[in-house]
Amino acid sequence: MSQLRKDPIVGRWTIIATERARRPAAFVDPQSTLSDPKKCPFCHGADKSVYESQGVKVFNSSSPILDDSKPFEHHSHGLYDVAHSYGSHEIVVETPLHIANMADLSSEQIARIFQTYALRMQTHRKNPFIEYVFAYKNYGVAAGSRNIGHSRSQIMAVPVLPMRVTDKTSGAKQYFETHERCLFCDMIDQELKKKERVVAQNEQFITITPFASRFPFETWILPKNHHCDFAEGIKDHESQLAAMMKDILLRFKIGLNDPAYNYMIHTSPVKRPSAFKDDYHWHIEIIPRLTRVAGFERGTGFYICPIPPEMTAAFLREVDIHA
Amino acid sequence: MSQLRKDPIVGRWTIIATERARRPAAFVDPQSTLSDPKKCPFCHGADKSVYESQGVKVFNSSSPILDDSKPFEHHSHGLYDVAHSYGSHEIVVETPLHIANMADLSSEQIARIFQTYALRMQTHRKNPFIEYVFAYKNYGVAAGSRNIGHSRSQIMAVPVLPMRVTDKTSGAKQYFETHERCLFCDMIDQELKKKERVVAQNEQFITITPFASRFPFETWILPKNHHCDFAEGIKDHESQLAAMMKDILLRFKIGLNDPAYNYMIHTSPVKRPSAFKDDYHWHIEIIPRLTRVAGFERGTGFYICPIPPEMTAAFLREVDIHA
Repeated sequence: MSQLRKDPIVGRWTIIATERARRPAAFVDPQSTLSDPKKCPFCHGADKSVYESQGVKVFNSSSPILDDSKPFEHHSHGLYDVAHSYGSHEIVVETPLHIANMADLSSEQIARIFQTYALRMQTHRKNPFIEYVFAYKNYGVAAGSRNIGHSRSQIMAVPVLPMRVTDKTSGAKQYFETHERCLFCDMIDQELKKKERVVAQNEQFITITPFASRFPFETWILPKNHHCDFAEGIKDHESQLAAMMKDILLRFKIGLNDPAYNYMIHTSPVKRPSAFKDDYHWHIEIIPRLTRVAGFERGTGFYICPIPPEMTAAFLREVDIHA
Repeated sequence: MSQLRKDPIVGRWTIIATERARRPAAFVDPQSTLSDPKKCPFCHGADKSVYESQGVKVFNSSSPILDDSKPFEHHSHGLYDVAHSYGSHEIVVETPLHIANMADLSSEQIARIFQTYALRMQTHRKNPFIEYVFAYKNYGVAAGSRNIGHSRSQIMAVPVLPMRVTDKTSGAKQYFETHERCLFCDMIDQELKKKERVVAQNEQFITITPFASRFPFETWILPKNHHCDFAEGIKDHESQLAAMMKDILLRFKIGLNDPAYNYMIHTSPVKRPSAFKDDYHWHIEIIPRLTRVAGFERGTGFYICPIPPEMTAAFLREVDIHA
């Protein structure tokens, strides 16, 4: 089984593949081949789903990096903290059809995918060892996906709080303590007044390119009405969220020539104190993979964004998604 | 001029290119072309160096993302913090010869490059607005470099403390406060006892694959004797550091088929309280770019390393660099 290891300096957890690790030689000539659709594992493969509804199927990963068959325990190796990599790693196969990009699914199907995330989040958080449930998508080789051509996403349930989640929740908490208002709600108000970074909106959702974007065309979808939790917050709004997601993904596909992208759902940690309800605000980050992260970003956590978000928002607004 | 913008949630600063920004269309079909060596800007280009010695030349970047011609000032835009992107951005051209990889320079030349970093760091930190001076290298397109084929590195002097620097220094400080010992010195002791993650060492330096490696073949060079500061700490040890760097870069080049890589020098912030001398320990991170960061890492700051560092250290130890 893999291990969870903690960096003693910054406290960052890493999952280290051990028993099923790739051999060193596998890194020498990495390949990315487009599989034959006739052999697509998501059209034809495994049939033991953990959840299935209306064309959306959830499987345990066939090469899981997390596993909940043994209880979660920490150990120390001298200075270092280690645990076996407890948790769940699920693949959400988003459609029975061999379609690569979520942008090309119907809004109705996308709504079902979001409902599936919500249901799986609610299931995983009943496990007392789980601290965070993370749903995300890798589309395209540059986004870290294998080039299989069948739309899918992933759900990870992990037993420790990820560093970037803590960064976000503690920043939001600090703002709330000073202002007694939600930072994200204030941000949405300001963006709606200025409009220069608003890409699209509907009754329930707003999509912006964030003020301090790290990446070109970085885009966030936020619910206009305050809610800390994705799984509870989307209730009755799934179809509006799906329409907004399809709208943005089509703008990327048409305007940027079908780029690779990731999306990441940011929601409150499982064990949130009740105050969290007021001070955190769920949202989705969508990041097309158009540039490479270089040494400056890796070393400092400081990003260089080669185009201002006001310009990318204007560009995305102009894309004709009905063409 | 570019802007420095602060993310209001996590406090991360981003440099946003504005006036000289790339146009949106430039992202649609990004290209990476190998320039004609006869037109290499580092063989033939600009002659106004800010520093020059024994084949190493330092230039101000011709497309700087930082600039110190106006004083550093913060402003607010409602919720947001913004400043013009104050600081320096220098290119270190490492050799007069058209050689792409630092691995192929002589140890003597590499020692001069490190001496140059030290001198530029000492110059920049006299500027009272500068909080951190960061020296790093991008080698190869996958590491974020343009494919020009002439070995070079970069120095950035920035007016705010980068997030990852603070993560490291505060982790080290916390350990020191509990144990009254340097975390890095304790780590080196433990690694030297176990040896399983030691790639190479000489009298002054040790190279390890860190216990909680984020990336396959991630490698750190650390001075065995405690010093918080690169610029002062390398004095009299430049040639040993250069020999260690050349050794590691050759192991990468030969063992991993000339991969792209970044290295990043981590040193203490400019305005360090005197206690810093004891609790921080400079080091160099070297990261070959063999895999892509996917949505999981982007969203959580939690990494998945597909091979254990014990296995990569063993592999790198076995590479015959004298072949």
